[in-house]
Amino acid sequence: MNYSTIPVAQSIIGHCKANGINNIVISPGSRNAPLTLSFTNDPFFKCFSIVDERCAAFYGMGMAQHLDRPVVLLCTSGSALLNYYPAIAEAYYSEIPLIVISADRPSYKIDIGDGQTIRQENVYEKHIGYSANLKQDLIHATERINRYSPSWLADDDLNQLQIEVQTHNDLELSTSLTVAFQQQLPIHINVPMEEPLYDTVEIDLALPKAVDFKRMDSEIIPSSFRETWKNAKRKMVLVGVNNPNLLEEDILEALGSDSSVIVFTETTSNMHHPNFFTSIDSILAPIELSEKKDELFKDLKPDILLTFGGHVVSKKVKAFLREYEPKHHWHVGYTKANDTYFCLEKHVKTSVNKFFESIYAEWSESPSNYFKLWDKVRLIYQIKREEYLSQVPYSDFLVFDRVLKSIPEEYQLHLANSSTIRYTQLFPLSPSLKVFCNRGASGIDGSTSTAIGASVNEATPTLLITGDLSFFYDSNALWNDYIRKDFRIILINNGGGGIFRILPGRKDSDSYERFFETKHKLNASSLCDMYNLKYDSASDDISLRNSLEGFYNTSDKPKLLEIFTPRVINNKILTDYFHFIS
Amino acid sequence: MNYSTIPVAQSIIGHCKANGINNIVISPGSRNAPLTLSFTNDPFFKCFSIVDERCAAFYGMGMAQHLDRPVVLLCTSGSALLNYYPAIAEAYYSEIPLIVISADRPSYKIDIGDGQTIRQENVYEKHIGYSANLKQDLIHATERINRYSPSWLADDDLNQLQIEVQTHNDLELSTSLTVAFQQQLPIHINVPMEEPLYDTVEIDLALPKAVDFKRMDSEIIPSSFRETWKNAKRKMVLVGVNNPNLLEEDILEALGSDSSVIVFTETTSNMHHPNFFTSIDSILAPIELSEKKDELFKDLKPDILLTFGGHVVSKKVKAFLREYEPKHHWHVGYTKANDTYFCLEKHVKTSVNKFFESIYAEWSESPSNYFKLWDKVRLIYQIKREEYLSQVPYSDFLVFDRVLKSIPEEYQLHLANSSTIRYTQLFPLSPSLKVFCNRGASGIDGSTSTAIGASVNEATPTLLITGDLSFFYDSNALWNDYIRKDFRIILINNGGGGIFRILPGRKDSDSYERFFETKHKLNASSLCDMYNLKYDSASDDISLRNSLEGFYNTSDKPKLLEIFTPRVINNKILTDYFHFIS
Repeated sequence: MNYSTIPVAQSIIGHCKANGINNIVISPGSRNAPLTLSFTNDPFFKCFSIVDERCAAFYGMGMAQHLDRPVVLLCTSGSALLNYYPAIAEAYYSEIPLIVISADRPSYKIDIGDGQTIRQENVYEKHIGYSANLKQDLIHATERINRYSPSWLADDDLNQLQIEVQTHNDLELSTSLTVAFQQQLPIHINVPMEEPLYDTVEIDLALPKAVDFKRMDSEIIPSSFRETWKNAKRKMVLVGVNNPNLLEEDILEALGSDSSVIVFTETTSNMHHPNFFTSIDSILAPIELSEKKDELFKDLKPDILLTFGGHVVSKKVKAFLREYEPKHHWHVGYTKANDTYFCLEKHVKTSVNKFFESIYAEWSESPSNYFKLWDKVRLIYQIKREEYLSQVPYSDFLVFDRVLKSIPEEYQLHLANSSTIRYTQLFPLSPSLKVFCNRGASGIDGSTSTAIGASVNEATPTLLITGDLSFFYDSNALWNDYIRKDFRIILINNGGGGIFRILPGRKDSDSYERFFETKHKLNASSLCDMYNLKYDSASDDISLRNSLEGFYNTSDKPKLLEIFTPRVINNKILTDYFHFIS
Repeated sequence: MNYSTIPVAQSIIGHCKANGINNIVISPGSRNAPLTLSFTNDPFFKCFSIVDERCAAFYGMGMAQHLDRPVVLLCTSGSALLNYYPAIAEAYYSEIPLIVISADRPSYKIDIGDGQTIRQENVYEKHIGYSANLKQDLIHATERINRYSPSWLADDDLNQLQIEVQTHNDLELSTSLTVAFQQQLPIHINVPMEEPLYDTVEIDLALPKAVDFKRMDSEIIPSSFRETWKNAKRKMVLVGVNNPNLLEEDILEALGSDSSVIVFTETTSNMHHPNFFTSIDSILAPIELSEKKDELFKDLKPDILLTFGGHVVSKKVKAFLREYEPKHHWHVGYTKANDTYFCLEKHVKTSVNKFFESIYAEWSESPSNYFKLWDKVRLIYQIKREEYLSQVPYSDFLVFDRVLKSIPEEYQLHLANSSTIRYTQLFPLSPSLKVFCNRGASGIDGSTSTAIGASVNEATPTLLITGDLSFFYDSNALWNDYIRKDFRIILINNGGGGIFRILPGRKDSDSYERFFETKHKLNASSLCDMYNLKYDSASDDISLRNSLEGFYNTSDKPKLLEIFTPRVINNKILTDYFHFIS
């Protein structure tokens, strides 16, 4: 096969190949040419070309998340890699393995006034699993040899030094890839390379040993845990972001039928049982608004809070658990345990399935009315929500109900930050949907790119639901050749950052509209023209129903449906909802 | 006036006001609400609202560069501030003072799983003049007091601690602003703030002392320098990026009439004299291609290389000076001296005017044929360039000639990276133009945003010339309310990254077109519809002449002229130019 003549480029290709890392998202450049040429020449690799690095990084992240495997991002030197940073922070907190490869100039060219040259080594230091700073090859290119090695150095010495460079680089590559696999974190490989950058050679690539990507062994669950669990009458299981199909069926069943357990899930938990509680805020808001707030919260407060998965969206459940501290908070999972409620007692480093298998191995129910009590509350808000919907005017709230009910079975559903995910949490979703949202850093950036990248390898189609600020922020997401014909976007355009109308502060000033809500009159039809998406729009309940009809049918291009909602009334309708169900 | 109740927010407003920092670019968010409310309530401040932080930062940078004064960027917590990073790196290397203010959560909320929360402190560490990590106020908000201070702490102690916090914050603010003023570097102020975020109070704001923003004193130029300068028969002055009107008229004249001096300027040098050499590459390319290359380069090689200003664009002059090392390299200027040619002997820390005043104070010319020799070469290429233009087909090369000749006097001219700036260097420009290009990190990102920000406060209109990749990369630059009606964009669309056709490597493969050139069929008409710009296009010499006619006339909206050029022939015509003039 034909690879770059540069040894470090060959090493990188070898390490990726040996470890089955074959998805490569490439942004154009010259400094990274040795790697671009090598990756694209070898049919083992599936390469994607995306110009805007900010989008490329989110795209790769979406892909890695859905494949549950590392994906490579490759860019040139200079500010290119800084544009990756928003996605890297998201990947870091969402524990998604991205392998960021940045081409660099050799160190003697840094900070001497050359173009596209910044301080790349360790630049993501605060949000990265590992920074591998590779070294410049010594047996390649004339200028470099002159600068790196004194002229009196014998060829033998130079060869010896080159062996040391290659040993260093191989070790750094193995170490960083091990972190990506074992800790599911993004890593950064910085690669200094000198001209000539475009030379290739026909070779049989030597593959290094694959890294050990087994996770660490599980902890043994002490029997005292089983005892404490068994004896507790009020256990709350709170599930954050999870990939679909995490829990075994019998464990779901055990949890769902334990009268002393209530399971709070979010749409991003991807975990379903008829007895689980899905709209946490609809349970908690009526309590917050109640005169008997303190009494009710004390009834709800668990003896044991058990958490697993990633970040939790609901602000209300965080506020509740921080104020009404559970006796025990255990977090289960291999990776980091967040002390979200300021009372974390134990991080059980094992798989969630193993934990519950151990807990329920010798299970005898300790009868409790905990589930029953809250199940009644749930029934009430469910009935009231339907009643509210039957009378509510056209608004974000109504639109979300209509849209969520329209989604075909088995779809991948991507949700943008931040109104979108918050509204969606209020409604039931079919368990057949797989739901995703960037909740690591929870930015409004990159949601569209993430969804497009995530969709590429999926067996079923993807729907992205997004708000207007998030959509326009990531408009360059549409600038690539990889949007599937069955990709669907529903853009709910309320003319600005609707979330701010829900937050405190005065809403009636010019200044508010300009600097908080950032009111605008944009629509997505021009972007759809530009990037060849089929565009449709709706602005009332009737046109919405019409537009949704047939929206998911097969088509010869991807589609976007823009739903305009009235900017000013949305927050009142949402607030009224919480009062209505109280 | 009405300001946030949060003490640290008041301090920041006070420090900005005391130091005359009044331009504030705000991106929406809730965590930064205390600062947004305070800045926008006080008419001293001129506030701009830009949603996409990547654009906001370049916009602020352009403004700061043109005002030659610090500009504030304000954003919320989380990935928002990572989107600033590309512009911050550019500002760092271009020495433009940006004051980045990021709202943050209090430290106990970091890394516990809350949304929009990352590790913000020192996040720009590698490319920042100073990172001020402010502390959370203790006398504000209940939750914070509980977490930060033990319950047994007496009120007096708490007040004492709060005084310490404020003292720390004031000192950090002064220190960081001093760096921004004295060193002309971007600084980062991270501001943890706790709820409630929207409360305001009517107060008379106490203003702190303004910081000392005098630059350090000038070095005295040793008389040995004057001697060396006087005795040298071949002196090359190479000028990088500079703001307009840097040098005094008499110094320009002295340099221009010294027969032992050749002054090499770039379009970004903004420095003009009939005897200065403007198209460095047109001088050097014929030598590179000549059989007598070594001899000619030895004739050109200076005894003294004197540099000032920022980065140099021309790769050819770098390659020449690195290979043919001058005896002396002196760099003049207060800030950093780059060892671009690996032979820097002395950094003279003084103003360029003072340096030359001292050098030419007792000047007697040491006759030399250095200028004359190269002036002849210059005449030859100038004649040949016109001859070449008279016969060349429609292409990037021809289009740049036409476009550059069309620009009205006194315009601000912004050039995007990277083909745009390189082509422009080949042609003469009117000395009345003021020319800018982001040559700190030299990325293709942010050129449009920079130009729009730069134009806001200018007395004369601005023209941006950009390539297609750079323009589409920064398409969100158009998403704001601050594009002047007289703002003009000329987009030269050659269907991909034309620069790659000029670089080595095979050009005839699908893989090349996809991963290097990133071929596309986009045009800007949809974006112009979306953002309300008047759109026109040209695709041959006749339509180009027609379109340029009247393009600069006053209009009721900003205008964009898209010039389509043939993707494939451009690089040959450029290469042929260098052969033709040889």
